[in-house]
Amino acid sequence: MENPSLRTSIPSGMVDIFGERMRRRQYALSIIEELYTSFGYESLQTPSVENAIVFDGHHGAGEKLLFKLKDAGGNDLVLRYDMTVPLARFMAMHPELKRPFKRFQIAQAFRDDEVDRGHFREFTQCDADVIGVNNLSADAEVIMMADLGLKRIGFKSYTIRISHRSILTGIADVICGQNHDIKWFQEILDKADAEVKKGKMNLRDGLVANGLSESQADEIFPILNLSGEPMVKLELLWKKLLGSLAVQKGVHELKQILSYLPDDVYANVAIDFTLARGANYYTGFILEGVVSDAPIGAVLGGGRYDDLLAAAGGKKEPAVGMAFGLDRIITAMEVLDFSPMVKNPTLLVFTEDGEMKKALDLVHRLRQCGLSVDFNPMVLKDDDASNYAEGRGYPAMVRVGERFNFIQLKECLHAFKRKVMEALSS
Amino acid sequence: MENPSLRTSIPSGMVDIFGERMRRRQYALSIIEELYTSFGYESLQTPSVENAIVFDGHHGAGEKLLFKLKDAGGNDLVLRYDMTVPLARFMAMHPELKRPFKRFQIAQAFRDDEVDRGHFREFTQCDADVIGVNNLSADAEVIMMADLGLKRIGFKSYTIRISHRSILTGIADVICGQNHDIKWFQEILDKADAEVKKGKMNLRDGLVANGLSESQADEIFPILNLSGEPMVKLELLWKKLLGSLAVQKGVHELKQILSYLPDDVYANVAIDFTLARGANYYTGFILEGVVSDAPIGAVLGGGRYDDLLAAAGGKKEPAVGMAFGLDRIITAMEVLDFSPMVKNPTLLVFTEDGEMKKALDLVHRLRQCGLSVDFNPMVLKDDDASNYAEGRGYPAMVRVGERFNFIQLKECLHAFKRKVMEALSS
Repeated sequence: MENPSLRTSIPSGMVDIFGERMRRRQYALSIIEELYTSFGYESLQTPSVENAIVFDGHHGAGEKLLFKLKDAGGNDLVLRYDMTVPLARFMAMHPELKRPFKRFQIAQAFRDDEVDRGHFREFTQCDADVIGVNNLSADAEVIMMADLGLKRIGFKSYTIRISHRSILTGIADVICGQNHDIKWFQEILDKADAEVKKGKMNLRDGLVANGLSESQADEIFPILNLSGEPMVKLELLWKKLLGSLAVQKGVHELKQILSYLPDDVYANVAIDFTLARGANYYTGFILEGVVSDAPIGAVLGGGRYDDLLAAAGGKKEPAVGMAFGLDRIITAMEVLDFSPMVKNPTLLVFTEDGEMKKALDLVHRLRQCGLSVDFNPMVLKDDDASNYAEGRGYPAMVRVGERFNFIQLKECLHAFKRKVMEALSS
Repeated sequence: MENPSLRTSIPSGMVDIFGERMRRRQYALSIIEELYTSFGYESLQTPSVENAIVFDGHHGAGEKLLFKLKDAGGNDLVLRYDMTVPLARFMAMHPELKRPFKRFQIAQAFRDDEVDRGHFREFTQCDADVIGVNNLSADAEVIMMADLGLKRIGFKSYTIRISHRSILTGIADVICGQNHDIKWFQEILDKADAEVKKGKMNLRDGLVANGLSESQADEIFPILNLSGEPMVKLELLWKKLLGSLAVQKGVHELKQILSYLPDDVYANVAIDFTLARGANYYTGFILEGVVSDAPIGAVLGGGRYDDLLAAAGGKKEPAVGMAFGLDRIITAMEVLDFSPMVKNPTLLVFTEDGEMKKALDLVHRLRQCGLSVDFNPMVLKDDDASNYAEGRGYPAMVRVGERFNFIQLKECLHAFKRKVMEALSS
């Protein structure tokens, strides 16, 4: 009972990527990879497939989302759910590696999730982590990296939101005494914050809608709603919750981290006590990045997670890191209708009268000059050629006949045009 | 009965890639990706997981190597075995795409193969294919691309070996009449050729060892062993086998293709009648690249395969393409002890007396100048710092104390050094 249409389909929640979305993706990925490298992170590649036991017991309810398979030898395997557990497995296998150990991994992760809720079942993760550094300068560097990344991608206006796990704890203490579950409060805050980011409701209503009583919301709203530039805001919180050791610790660490930041990075940072981050493995500062005028949620996130490596099967070591959300970044670029100008665009070459050899010699010379050239032997006429070129976003073409005719199709960088003209006349 | 060591292991035939091998890999991949782009190929990404039926019936005996899995909805899925079948599936789903359609795909492929024979079960494929062009200028461009790729990677001496499927047929006719199985002859030739490439035996012995009779070997050895530069060699074959229509067709097409090549590409080409290529889907010219002084087999391969897309589930369309063998290329670089000079190496910054803020301000400024900088807050003394830097291949470091001290550890490009010095004094 074969369904023939299945032959020309892909599994739900997975995608083919091509064309304009691929061009934005390549652009963002090349910037992220170069950024991580420029901060001294080295690339690590682990297998897409791990022994099932490696992922056993680390993701709680998430484990039911693991894609499971058996190989010909009957071994139990799973598709990689994230990059963190393989990192812990790798560190355990390589005790010889010196600390600090800084690695990035850009690779596919797989989760057999509910597709109808808009989840992808295969997606790209872009993780960068430092293992073995307690010093808060590493936390400052993560903020510097988030800032420089968003700047290099080309976002003009964005905010790096920062908070601290201990501050969350201290605020929860206010409404619950010390006898509360931080996860409970974190979830309420996280959901309320997500709704504020999407513009769905204001913060106070969000808190009540997600589980706080009216009086609890009234009590902590003035705290969450403190305003001012980062150092000032931390001072205000400190004074408001003088008795909380947790708040003291969080404020002290954040001040230290902020004091390390260069001025132009500090200018893009906001302390935000409503920031909770979904994952509950953070132990210190947390951060996320939001792009102004793109109400799609955070485009990056991270923080310090000193217990995670041990929880994921490694030994206990301090760790701090972040990840860019590639799909969110591409969506933000789409929302802002932001197509980066291609520095090295492709030139179409064609020949109206079958001058194949002459055309290929030219194509060869243009490529040796560092130009990207698409030679199309199937189009002969200007109309067909410009049609083909425009469909692929090429800014110009050259017709090879008795002479070489340069035909510009849309705006392109002066340097590109000059390079082509020089190569044509040489 | 858990085997605890499994928690710190990876599936056999799969690998973690890090350090020197990763650096060579990143270098080769960036060149291959840039090369494909500069020839007008666009990047396509398909899912790592396909509906099982998509791979059904296309790989013969290879099908038993498919990794199979089921998702939570009970759907039958497989891990991608190659990039060609997904390409055919993609083309069938996107009839609107204009021809020529040129796409490259650099991604992981999965085969549940016998690991003890040195096969990887997960490996990277780097495919580039042109769909919809009959014109032989496309074949010439594939040769130009192979040549420029090996040149850009930095191999000083290499050969692009070329032959044609019809020539193979014509030579087989000589010893078997027209009543033979081309696959039989192709396999003998392919195995003999592999042994010659590895330096294990000469060609004539290889032919006999793999199945030809002594008299058959005597008959075709003089043909296979013809020598001369490409055009001359084709002339000699033509005269020797005047009666063979198949040889006429092959010689005619190869001459046409060679006539399109720029002189400096032609100089690296050898016509080689012993070249057979393992896959039997080729219909026209075939090519492979071998690096001199690295007897490890071909580092790239490809050719024209006008029937493959139909066989892989698409419609019948002409196709020509090639793939770089990434692992072979890295191995060739290792054999030749060839480490490319890193243009933008990483600089280590450390501070002997806890000048964190001063050090991070410097680090920030250096990165804004485009330099890659690894700040290590854990080392304080020169010895520890140089130890850490040398382990990661950094050529220099800066100690931040009252002043900035630049310490060079090994040879580095003058431009890099000047850039650092300028940034230090600004």
